[in-house]
Amino acid sequence: MKSDTICALLTPNGTGAIGVIRVSGPNSIAIVSSFFSKDIACSNSHTLHFGSFKNKKEEILDEVLLSVFHEGKSFTGEQSVEISCHGSSYILQSVIECLLKAGCRIAEPGEFTKRAFLNGKLDLSQAEAVADLIASQSKAMHNIALKQLKGHFSDELKALRQQLIDFASLIELELDFGEEDVEFADRDKLKELLVQVLQRVENLADTFAMGNVMKQGVPVAIVGAPNTGKSTLLNSLIGEDRAIVSDIAGTTRDVIEETFNIDGILFRFIDTAGIRETNEEIESIGIERAKKKIEEATIVLCLSDSENPLPEVLDWSEKLMIQFPEKEVFVIQNKSDLLTMQKPMDGAFLISAKTGAGLDELKKQLVNAITKGKDWSNQTIITSARHHEALLKTSEALEKALFGLSSDISADLIALDIRNAMYHLGSITGDISSDELLGNIFSRFCIGK
Amino acid sequence: MKSDTICALLTPNGTGAIGVIRVSGPNSIAIVSSFFSKDIACSNSHTLHFGSFKNKKEEILDEVLLSVFHEGKSFTGEQSVEISCHGSSYILQSVIECLLKAGCRIAEPGEFTKRAFLNGKLDLSQAEAVADLIASQSKAMHNIALKQLKGHFSDELKALRQQLIDFASLIELELDFGEEDVEFADRDKLKELLVQVLQRVENLADTFAMGNVMKQGVPVAIVGAPNTGKSTLLNSLIGEDRAIVSDIAGTTRDVIEETFNIDGILFRFIDTAGIRETNEEIESIGIERAKKKIEEATIVLCLSDSENPLPEVLDWSEKLMIQFPEKEVFVIQNKSDLLTMQKPMDGAFLISAKTGAGLDELKKQLVNAITKGKDWSNQTIITSARHHEALLKTSEALEKALFGLSSDISADLIALDIRNAMYHLGSITGDISSDELLGNIFSRFCIGK
Repeated sequence: MKSDTICALLTPNGTGAIGVIRVSGPNSIAIVSSFFSKDIACSNSHTLHFGSFKNKKEEILDEVLLSVFHEGKSFTGEQSVEISCHGSSYILQSVIECLLKAGCRIAEPGEFTKRAFLNGKLDLSQAEAVADLIASQSKAMHNIALKQLKGHFSDELKALRQQLIDFASLIELELDFGEEDVEFADRDKLKELLVQVLQRVENLADTFAMGNVMKQGVPVAIVGAPNTGKSTLLNSLIGEDRAIVSDIAGTTRDVIEETFNIDGILFRFIDTAGIRETNEEIESIGIERAKKKIEEATIVLCLSDSENPLPEVLDWSEKLMIQFPEKEVFVIQNKSDLLTMQKPMDGAFLISAKTGAGLDELKKQLVNAITKGKDWSNQTIITSARHHEALLKTSEALEKALFGLSSDISADLIALDIRNAMYHLGSITGDISSDELLGNIFSRFCIGK
Repeated sequence: MKSDTICALLTPNGTGAIGVIRVSGPNSIAIVSSFFSKDIACSNSHTLHFGSFKNKKEEILDEVLLSVFHEGKSFTGEQSVEISCHGSSYILQSVIECLLKAGCRIAEPGEFTKRAFLNGKLDLSQAEAVADLIASQSKAMHNIALKQLKGHFSDELKALRQQLIDFASLIELELDFGEEDVEFADRDKLKELLVQVLQRVENLADTFAMGNVMKQGVPVAIVGAPNTGKSTLLNSLIGEDRAIVSDIAGTTRDVIEETFNIDGILFRFIDTAGIRETNEEIESIGIERAKKKIEEATIVLCLSDSENPLPEVLDWSEKLMIQFPEKEVFVIQNKSDLLTMQKPMDGAFLISAKTGAGLDELKKQLVNAITKGKDWSNQTIITSARHHEALLKTSEALEKALFGLSSDISADLIALDIRNAMYHLGSITGDISSDELLGNIFSRFCIGK
């Protein structure tokens, strides 16, 4: 089953010095060569070639740099060529048009990565990590995606699955001996193994809450009376981070404007009406807009100030904690620099967004509210809903197998549950080949025969 | 004078599969190598290397592909490395931060091209063409920029300049013989040559009007009564072009929305209030808004329709032609499909934006209004104001030299004018080396000694 030759722009649209087009598939070198001023048919893999890209009318479209990759040595695993052009949309469009006329097809979204999977260059969970890596906006998310791409997660799943396979095959052997009532699989050892695997699978599934927060960013709501310094607080939280990001010219302000990284974790400021303060906010704390804002948040910062401290803020926060026990609620007393005679509010965080006093401690507590003091950096963390689903199904099947073992149920039913668990684990990495998949489906029919 | 090592993102910001960072300068291979999982110090030029990019804490930032270029063989002419990363702004930013810590500096705008010029890889006009090529939005502009990059314009200028140099040296020789009153330079031949060069320089300078229009796009205003089909006309003019452009995912609609390419020439629709029709437009044809729109335009399309023809449109267009004799004014009668009994208006272009009737002819006439029927595709066209300025100064100096020849002025003054002409011609390609520049400055002092 030979695949066709596909092409697509790899770089973002917009103005840049260069744009890169990838061509991948069995005819990629021949197709690109037909437009190029030099013959690249016999060139080695991983070589660069500078020359002119001409259309079929022999008109030069651009001076380009080609990267040649041989079959088995490229990202997709197929023969492929990357064309680095000047970054004009006119040129990129013209080059793609030439390629299409010569028999290429525009790659579907994700098709290069899909081919890499089909050609065994990546497993499914690694392929999914590519998309996460590209979308990663924080160090934490970047670490997770990169680890997944490097195969750490896959390796762990494969090891768990191998343990199940080893045991399952012993049980299957018992089934083969049918009437003879032998037990190759030590039931106690099997139980021990299943408990171990189940625990690890449940632990992994539990990391999804954390993974999801890291992937999406932690939603933070700041509520408070007007002029308590909400914008100043937000700005000082964003401050440093934004300055670094804008070092790379052209980073879209809109996208990053309301997010901030602390210790590599992305926090996302939510304000349904932008960052503007509204006079009604204090009165409307119980009403729709503020409610919505708080409902979306994982962390709520209740702000009062030191000049005109609002003891009501303590009431709100208590109400919030009762109404939303799963949320982290911080009472913050801003403008500590203006606090002269008064006593700070009980249980409030004293900060000065202006001078920066107390901000480091606040940041530390924000991070802590998410990590619960745990060091996640070396943990495998699940960020994909598909993986989470598969892990839940795995643990369900394992629990059934365990229940079966305890209830002295027959080996064939236990074998079915273990196969199910193996199937769901394998679906994460794509290790379920279609044979295996078919096998799994048919085993349902055959058992109990 | 060794230069330092600089780096910058080559690809546009935004979401893409990859992003490319260029490092150029004497330490580029050593610096990048210090972060890379393999040693690239001894690798050949024009080779690609896949591996991990690690920061100084040995944390992997990404799996990257390096392109290695040796000194003299890169775009800048310096040793350089291009790092192709996954297209996440987090990764690109982190990689750039590593490079900066290792002693790189962020490249200034245009600095790679400037280095290419300083290292003799491009002359000045070619260097300028790089920017034009990237910005080109139409086939015509793309052709001009590419020809300039390929050195066609430079070659012609150099040939003209060489002719002047040959003659100038004969005159300078006369000066050396000072008192002896010999004439090495045949005055008639010199005059003939100067006339020839002057004519070509003036021709080139004249192409700037056309070049500027091609570079900026031809501004077109569509004015007319409400419901005469202005938007439909605009859409059918844009139609095909937009469809092709949007094949490349993510092309910003905002940027291309109101431009259309016909025969490779970019037309730019101007509407100070967007594409919306306003009821007042017909009454306000003489007032501010419409005036401004028309003043900005090179071509004005006055639209009436066939259902309710407005003979006033003929009056407007006549007034327009008198008030703005340099503008191309088209009277267009739209909805020709609804024209049953009535006679078409005199001198109006009959079209149906809906059925497409007459549109091809209209497009042809729009192109013709710009090209005046001339085939510009093989012409050298000036698009840079700097070049235009230099050509005007060249022609001024040549005219002075010619006047000097006719008035039997002394050789030293003629030599000065010819040197001046050579200087301005040479400034376009950057052929004025600092020696020559200094020479030119000092010759002003020395002459007449």
